[in-house]
Amino acid sequence: MKLYDFTIAPNPRRVRIFLAEKGVEIPIVQIDLMQGEQFSPEFSQKCPSNEVPLLELDNGVCLSQVDAICRYIEAKYPQNPLYGATPEEIGLIEMWNHLAFMNGIGAVAESFRNGTEVFKDRAVVGPNPHAQIPALIERGNKRTLEFFANIDGHLASRQFMAGDRFSIADITTLVAVDFAKWIKLEAPAELVNLTRWYTEVSQRPSAQA
Amino acid sequence: MKLYDFTIAPNPRRVRIFLAEKGVEIPIVQIDLMQGEQFSPEFSQKCPSNEVPLLELDNGVCLSQVDAICRYIEAKYPQNPLYGATPEEIGLIEMWNHLAFMNGIGAVAESFRNGTEVFKDRAVVGPNPHAQIPALIERGNKRTLEFFANIDGHLASRQFMAGDRFSIADITTLVAVDFAKWIKLEAPAELVNLTRWYTEVSQRPSAQA
Repeated sequence: MKLYDFTIAPNPRRVRIFLAEKGVEIPIVQIDLMQGEQFSPEFSQKCPSNEVPLLELDNGVCLSQVDAICRYIEAKYPQNPLYGATPEEIGLIEMWNHLAFMNGIGAVAESFRNGTEVFKDRAVVGPNPHAQIPALIERGNKRTLEFFANIDGHLASRQFMAGDRFSIADITTLVAVDFAKWIKLEAPAELVNLTRWYTEVSQRPSAQA
Repeated sequence: MKLYDFTIAPNPRRVRIFLAEKGVEIPIVQIDLMQGEQFSPEFSQKCPSNEVPLLELDNGVCLSQVDAICRYIEAKYPQNPLYGATPEEIGLIEMWNHLAFMNGIGAVAESFRNGTEVFKDRAVVGPNPHAQIPALIERGNKRTLEFFANIDGHLASRQFMAGDRFSIADITTLVAVDFAKWIKLEAPAELVNLTRWYTEVSQRPSAQA
């Protein structure tokens, strides 16, 4: 196995935290998104959607998309399940992981990709050009603040995003909160539940991955 | 268990097809999105994100998000796995299911929600108002056509979206292709692989669910 990564980007970090929590090590290759290396002929052949993270298996099969990679790892190394063990846990973790991806990472990306010069004409992930839409900067910012408030309420009665165990839903939420710093947004201190949770999960060794 | 549904909407249909393929029956309650029933106090308490499908478990726990519901069902009724059995199958199915959701259903929704009077000020799913952005109509249409072309190429060498077995990735792609009719887009006949696959999966009894 080989993991294609770009260390500063948020989505590959989700995989690296996942691997650290599982205690699994994989050789890592850097793809410099700022230099456009994801569009090289060699990488495009492995990954037609031109993105990282990408996991290349020993038989040549390539998996893009964070949850595809993490679920492959989880199936191969089932110890310490981060996608849940019981049906209810599995459902709740998937629900909050998806909500954190759509409303957290998705909201920040909406603002960032539409307002940053390097993504000019690449406002949508993938091989096809798409112009930036300035109205999405403001919408992304608004959605990010709504996400913070929503997660704060959710965490009022829970230690972790999907109950009393750390899961992939915490990883995605943590990465979303850190990604928001790229658009200069931080969770307001009065959101005490989010702040308490953020402090806790940021102190896990995996958060440095 | 009880499934909250709105029959004409695309996302609940993904769950109904999934249930039909699994041979699992659940009592269904209609929530009329056109009448705003998803914002009633009773439903908002079950589902703060104000959307269907929603699965209410017998202990009162509620799961929103299609994949959260379907993965709960899969964990409870593991026969005929639609999310895969081997690590590689699990990874590939998740990858294509996610891509079909983001680039298929997501693209059509982008066009539809920003161009339809009933979604005025509700361009983003959830409880918070968001104005429509007209530029997203055109972008959503363009992305939908790009999705068709991408899937056509992918299906040139595969019977189903994630290999030689029907999976949740086929369900999401089928629903995306049918949802595109809402924005008056159909896969061009020259996309012969997509057309072949679409004809096949549309003829499965589950497609009527």
